[in-house]
Amino acid sequence: MKSLHKVSHGAQIFLRIFALVASAISAWLMLTAEEKAIVYGMAMSAKYSYSPAFKFAAFANVVASAFALLSLCLTFIVIRKGNPSNYFFLFMHDLVIMSVVLGGCAAATAIGYVGKYGNSEAGWLPICDHFTSFCNRVTSSVILSYASTVSFLFLTVISALNSRQFRLSNS
Amino acid sequence: MKSLHKVSHGAQIFLRIFALVASAISAWLMLTAEEKAIVYGMAMSAKYSYSPAFKFAAFANVVASAFALLSLCLTFIVIRKGNPSNYFFLFMHDLVIMSVVLGGCAAATAIGYVGKYGNSEAGWLPICDHFTSFCNRVTSSVILSYASTVSFLFLTVISALNSRQFRLSNS
Repeated sequence: MKSLHKVSHGAQIFLRIFALVASAISAWLMLTAEEKAIVYGMAMSAKYSYSPAFKFAAFANVVASAFALLSLCLTFIVIRKGNPSNYFFLFMHDLVIMSVVLGGCAAATAIGYVGKYGNSEAGWLPICDHFTSFCNRVTSSVILSYASTVSFLFLTVISALNSRQFRLSNS
Repeated sequence: MKSLHKVSHGAQIFLRIFALVASAISAWLMLTAEEKAIVYGMAMSAKYSYSPAFKFAAFANVVASAFALLSLCLTFIVIRKGNPSNYFFLFMHDLVIMSVVLGGCAAATAIGYVGKYGNSEAGWLPICDHFTSFCNRVTSSVILSYASTVSFLFLTVISALNSRQFRLSNS
């Protein structure tokens, strides 16, 4: 049972560090995404702040990286104490952060898709032909954000399992 | 402790029925959203299937309502058996379905926002001035989908709590 706990603790610490790094890089890529181009003779620019979906995705990743760091510190305390109630607190944290980052990912994907392929029925033209660097940066940001979401999803399951397993081992 | 379990069971059954109804109506509203209009002298139409985000939101709600019904039946079996492992199975179910519906909501909100307010920087014009009925229908669908997401979020927490509480009361 002890080796199982060690694997669970190791996985938790690894996933929190991974989510922290993925979300931090994702937020940085999104917040610094900017490109100027001449489109049909007009000077135009693309910036993450032009889209509420991209702003929300960046905000979600900033929050996620901050809370991943905070929860990493808390994890060490929770592991030392081994109280199932603390694991339940971590579970609630992971569930909420996962939901926020997932919402940001989905919204940014939807807008990114229109940016790349347009929507002919609505008359929305694709912009990625003119803003290739901007689009690549946003795509990388969204991919990293999905990686962070998956980490928080696993963390949610691990925290829920831990709040049971520790009870089982203590009882 | 028994009365607490009764409240938990009642809340679970209510939330599953609520999620089932909300998701089913949301999917129906989205799948039947269609409007024809004359825009600048041209015959145009708006349909949910023109947007991958709306298609995904409709699909997510169909899946959610089907699984809400299935999990409602399973809940009665799980309540009778009272095995915490079964509650963990319900927890995994609720977590996955919540994530899928939330993804659909966020994507549909992002596209709906562009449909209503446009995006002047990208040159995407709003379409809701011409397709009022379509936009109202999609808005109602998305609101109901958020209601279903919140239900599944509560269900995820209740299932996780139950898988602990039943252990605590049995130990």
